Amino acid sequence: MADFPLPPGSTIGILGGGQLGRMLAMAAARMGFDVAILEPEADCPAGRVAARLIVGAYDDPAALKQLAEAADVITFEFENVPAAAVAELTRLGARVAPDARALAIAQDRVEEKAFLNQIGVPTVAFAPVDGEGDLAVALQKLGSPLLLKTRRGGYDGKGQAWVHRAVDGARAVAELGGGALIAEAPADFRRELAVIAARGRDGEIAVFPVVESHHESGILRRASAPAKATDRARAEVERLAATLLSGLDYVGVLGLELFERDDGTLLANEFAPRVHNTGHWTLDGCETDQFEQHIRAVAGWPLGPTDATSHVETINLLGEDVASWLKMAREPDSRLWLYGKRETRPGRKMGHVNRLSSLDRGG
Amino acid sequence: MADFPLPPGSTIGILGGGQLGRMLAMAAARMGFDVAILEPEADCPAGRVAARLIVGAYDDPAALKQLAEAADVITFEFENVPAAAVAELTRLGARVAPDARALAIAQDRVEEKAFLNQIGVPTVAFAPVDGEGDLAVALQKLGSPLLLKTRRGGYDGKGQAWVHRAVDGARAVAELGGGALIAEAPADFRRELAVIAARGRDGEIAVFPVVESHHESGILRRASAPAKATDRARAEVERLAATLLSGLDYVGVLGLELFERDDGTLLANEFAPRVHNTGHWTLDGCETDQFEQHIRAVAGWPLGPTDATSHVETINLLGEDVASWLKMAREPDSRLWLYGKRETRPGRKMGHVNRLSSLDRGG
Repeated sequence: MADFPLPPGSTIGILGGGQLGRMLAMAAARMGFDVAILEPEADCPAGRVAARLIVGAYDDPAALKQLAEAADVITFEFENVPAAAVAELTRLGARVAPDARALAIAQDRVEEKAFLNQIGVPTVAFAPVDGEGDLAVALQKLGSPLLLKTRRGGYDGKGQAWVHRAVDGARAVAELGGGALIAEAPADFRRELAVIAARGRDGEIAVFPVVESHHESGILRRASAPAKATDRARAEVERLAATLLSGLDYVGVLGLELFERDDGTLLANEFAPRVHNTGHWTLDGCETDQFEQHIRAVAGWPLGPTDATSHVETINLLGEDVASWLKMAREPDSRLWLYGKRETRPGRKMGHVNRLSSLDRGG
Repeated sequence: MADFPLPPGSTIGILGGGQLGRMLAMAAARMGFDVAILEPEADCPAGRVAARLIVGAYDDPAALKQLAEAADVITFEFENVPAAAVAELTRLGARVAPDARALAIAQDRVEEKAFLNQIGVPTVAFAPVDGEGDLAVALQKLGSPLLLKTRRGGYDGKGQAWVHRAVDGARAVAELGGGALIAEAPADFRRELAVIAARGRDGEIAVFPVVESHHESGILRRASAPAKATDRARAEVERLAATLLSGLDYVGVLGLELFERDDGTLLANEFAPRVHNTGHWTLDGCETDQFEQHIRAVAGWPLGPTDATSHVETINLLGEDVASWLKMAREPDSRLWLYGKRETRPGRKMGHVNRLSSLDRGG
């Protein structure tokens, strides 16, 4: 196994074969790396641009062994990698980045918020809920309404419900599985921000410009970057991202989602220990894109520069939105990214379009 | 087989698995296409980023049949594709772009110059040489010295020799194979220019900004774009490129190399019916890059915009140059592209680096 920095010709292993894996694989190829994907589906977006595809479950010991033998370093494109998979890869002598601890913290919403608060990154008030009784206590302590979520899993707005009164609690708790939940106080935010940041193997940190994100029904619909923000807000976002990266002793790119409240204060919502949908603007509007930055970090390369070169509005193409590909291909200031998914399903992320405009617009 | 414009999910076939095929495959993937590569080497740069690799000779009927069945349109990354291969693909009902005629003209230096002159694109004076006698006639007609080249094959300065006197002729002719040669008058140029241009299936033409190219020992060493040039020179380059594209009824991207003489007049040197090394600057300095533009053209998509966004100096990384990858990865204004070639050989194109600077420098 080669030492860091990994020389070109080394192999980057990636758990997960979706669009994030696909864009990571393309970035790695540009840098002269080979890519090996481990993914349960034989026909997947990332497998079609990778040197090697290992088809298997993420916890299949034989598949993990193949990946460990093929790859000089292993990363992942989603945060719900089974902890056992990372443990097994580590046991096999593979190097995994980000590490098991960052994954474990990000996989549990209670652990995540507790960790964030512990390192000085503020969040909404929260309480673990392991049954109806806990919810009543949480309503007393945190007030009403509360957002009830599963501690683990759930994404794009799935696995959550608002609870207004204790009498609704039983049904809400039952609907979300009865336990292993978190109750969160409302954030009362005026807008949602996000930031993509990276930390190298030498501890170097690089933070991309701040993004303003817009969700609909819990799914990211569009993201605008660099976001209009005061110098103070920008500095605070950078400080929070750097605090998180250092606190985790992190290697790679992460995405941190934030709430900006009316008084300008910021609360962390959650972080994803991976490249992130709110960072797709960097593909066309930044000196380095988030995918190359992640590969640089995990391969032990120096991080790339993160200044914006354009203002970008990223529009997610969900479900049938992608049918307009020809119209978008005609727009001179649009850069179209399609993910190669075979089946169009409602709400499925099929691609995105980056709409570019001049930085001078004061963003 | 889908109609043009090919929808995302269609398959682009590419003859050739080198770095040009690799960068074409990555552009196609970004647009949601699958890619099938036909290439004799099992471990090749493009095969490692393509959905499918068919290993076979370019004239292997079984391999061509597989490619024809897999691909909705077929293109190539080099101009010395056997004419028989294109004929066989066409017989199998495949759609090939650029077409057999553009290939045939580009494959023969006499045909190429004759065609250029016929459509009004000036070149140096030239004469076919099929033996020592022809060379003596050429020296009388065109003067001395002459550059003697093979009519077919030969690239990066291989397959050519200067002839100063008739008495040297026999040896020069013999060394280059005895016949099927071309004798060219010197261009007496002050600099070499190149231009990348595209023509769509609807006849739409898009010309990229002009490039100044610098060769050493016949190999492109660096290219600088947009080149400093008068408006008149720029317009003339665009006119010549458009004349060539229309004259060939061309579909796809081509690279046209030009000589600029002391009096400012331009002579075409040669054209390549494919993406071209002098166009690599577009990857980081242009609204659309030449690889995406080629895929757009052959897939019947509208062409992308071609304005420069940065001034770029492209440096080819030849042989051991690539050993400096870490130094280049540290340069904030450098964008590094490595081709994934397993073996470093002297003069071999291992990658390139695009060094960016502001357009305001008046290039």
